Order: sequence, then structure tokens, then C-alpha cells
Amino acid sequence: MSNEHNDYVRDLVFSLKKLPGIGERSARRLAFHILSQNDAAAFNLANSIVNAKKNVNLCKVCFNLASEELCPVCSNNSRNEKMLCIVENPEIIYVFEKSGNYNGYYHVLHGLINPLEGVGPADIKLKELVDRVAGEGFEEIVIALNPNSNGEATSFYIQKLLAPYNVNITALARGIPIGSDLEYVDKDTLAEAISGRKKF
Amino acid sequence: MSNEHNDYVRDLVFSLKKLPGIGERSARRLAFHILSQNDAAAFNLANSIVNAKKNVNLCKVCFNLASEELCPVCSNNSRNEKMLCIVENPEIIYVFEKSGNYNGYYHVLHGLINPLEGVGPADIKLKELVDRVAGEGFEEIVIALNPNSNGEATSFYIQKLLAPYNVNITALARGIPIGSDLEYVDKDTLAEAISGRKKF
Repeated sequence: MSNEHNDYVRDLVFSLKKLPGIGERSARRLAFHILSQNDAAAFNLANSIVNAKKNVNLCKVCFNLASEELCPVCSNNSRNEKMLCIVENPEIIYVFEKSGNYNGYYHVLHGLINPLEGVGPADIKLKELVDRVAGEGFEEIVIALNPNSNGEATSFYIQKLLAPYNVNITALARGIPIGSDLEYVDKDTLAEAISGRKKF
Repeated sequence: MSNEHNDYVRDLVFSLKKLPGIGERSARRLAFHILSQNDAAAFNLANSIVNAKKNVNLCKVCFNLASEELCPVCSNNSRNEKMLCIVENPEIIYVFEKSGNYNGYYHVLHGLINPLEGVGPADIKLKELVDRVAGEGFEEIVIALNPNSNGEATSFYIQKLLAPYNVNITALARGIPIGSDLEYVDKDTLAEAISGRKKF
């Protein structure tokens, strides 16, 4: 594999392969692409990475990505200060904001409780959540975690954790996704959709 | 879209989106991943890009990627100097070397003739190919271009270009891929496989 002997290409492939969803073949394809570009394009990509990493930190309040002390959501005081939505990571905030159907604040856990991988309650932003709920006047907390076993476990833990406080805890509705074909909906989703059925 | 207001994240997503096969969603996912890593991992990726781009150039002889004057293939003089394989880009050399079934030299065109996108014969390394074939003593030239219309057009052009020289010009065999299911093979491949059938 003579081409492998080029250390620079190998290093680049190795670094790219660490990205999520990028396997050996994709990493190689990206590397060859980067090397076939002009210098400016490649250096631009490298600069974007360094600049973003240097200038983007976590919001002091909700742990969303922020290039100031506070993220754009927390620094906007025209939002609904009675509502807090708990999400796993900043990507989910992006999705929520894009949908435009939520105008409360957020709290980013940066992970889910995952006993198999040794992630316990102390490893995610739960203490900070309790402090916020104790200190701020939220009336409703929406738990918006992924519907998988770690998400369920974390939701359950949060419900117990927040039980002493006078807040309504809600969760996103489960059911048939819009535009889906009932024939292909998995049985757990169907079960949730049936038990959660609503009057017209 | 409050999260969009972070210029650094937007720039990073924008740069990542220029990579092949990376759409808006993947770019966002990669960006959030890069930002959630520790500094070292992100800076490492940026450095790999810059280092590869600075240190990797094109081989003076065959236009493969090289960090010296000559690429690892061209600087290996124990290969078969009678054979030359014409490929579209350096990635194909990697695939050939990995298969371990070819031990001649290569010539990288860096593109295919593509009239629709305005890529003509002068835009790829064809003049350099003719110079090599005229100057070096190749006995066989294997054309290993993709089996699509641009690959076919380029192959045809190369055959005419090299006709004056005393070399055998061959092409990779077409046919049914190993491990495939005949039911799903497209009709053009099947036609090639039938017309190219061989005696047991």
C-alpha cells in the first residue's frame, strides 16, 4: 500500500475518521478532496475549526453553545421565562429553534445517564438543572430527551430530582410521525399512539 | 433561529458543507461534534489539514500525491516499468495498491473530459501522458477510468492520442461484480458480461 506511506495523508485520514459518521472510506474521500482543493479552501476549513473552537464556549446559564457569556437564547429576555426545556445537546436547541414552536428557555444536559458506558447523574448537567429550578421561577419543565432507554432513564431520574419543586413536568408527545406510513411504524410507537389517542 | 446567530458555528458549518457528501445536516452534526470535543482533538484536525495541504504535492512524474519530488510508486524502481495504468485521480491508485494485483506505474489525469462542464483535453494531464508514452518504454497502457460517459469519452480520446505509439492499449474487464446478485445487475453490465463471456 504505497500510498499509505505518505504520513501527512495518513494523519489527515486518521483525524477525519474520528468524526461521527465518517468511516475509513469517507475519511479517505474527504482527505483526497481537501488535498485536491486550492490552498485557500483547505486553510479556510482549518481556520473555521480553530476559530469556532477558540471562540465558542458554553453558555453560563443553560450550557448551549455561546460566543459570549450568554447564548443567544439566554440573552433574549423577551422569551417565556416560565418555561424550561431540557435537551441532551445544543443540536436539539437548533432543531427546536428552527421549528419555531417553542419560546421558553433551555437547559442542555450534555449527555444522558448511561450505566453501560459509566455515565452517571454527576457526569451530566443535573446539579446545575436543580439549582436553576430552585432559583428561577419556572412553571413548566418540558423534558425533551430522545425516546430510547438512556433517554427514558434520564427522564425518570429528572422527574424524581425535581419532584420537591413546585413545577409541572411534561414530556414531548409520542405518536405517529407526520407523513409516515402506518404500515411501517414500529410497534412501540404504535402502542404509544394508541394509548395516547385524542378526541377529534 | 437564535443558534444561527453564532457566526463561528455558522462559518464552521459553511466550510464543512463544501466537502463532498456533506450536506447541511451532516455539516451541523460534525460542527457540534468538533465543538464538543476537547481543544486538542479539534486543533489536531485543523493541523492535519494544514500539514497535509502544505506538505503534500503532486508527483513530478505521475501526478499522484507525494510529499517528496516523486510519489512512493514512482520512487520504487522494482515495479514493472513496461506497464502504465491511467487513472482519474489519486484515490484510484490507493484502491489499486490495496488490491495488490498491479505492479506497474500510474498516470493520474486529475479529471475526465467533460464537455458539459467545459473540461476539455487540455484541462487534464493528457499532454503529460503523451510525453511519458513517447519518452519511456511502456509496452502496455491500461486505461482504468470509470465506466460512465465521461470515462468512455476520455478513454476513446486517449486511444486516438496514443495510436501513433507502439504500445498495447487495454481496458479493465467489464462484467458481473463478484458477490452480486444477477437479479439486480443493470442491463448494460449484463450486456457487457454476455458479450465478454469467456470459455471455462
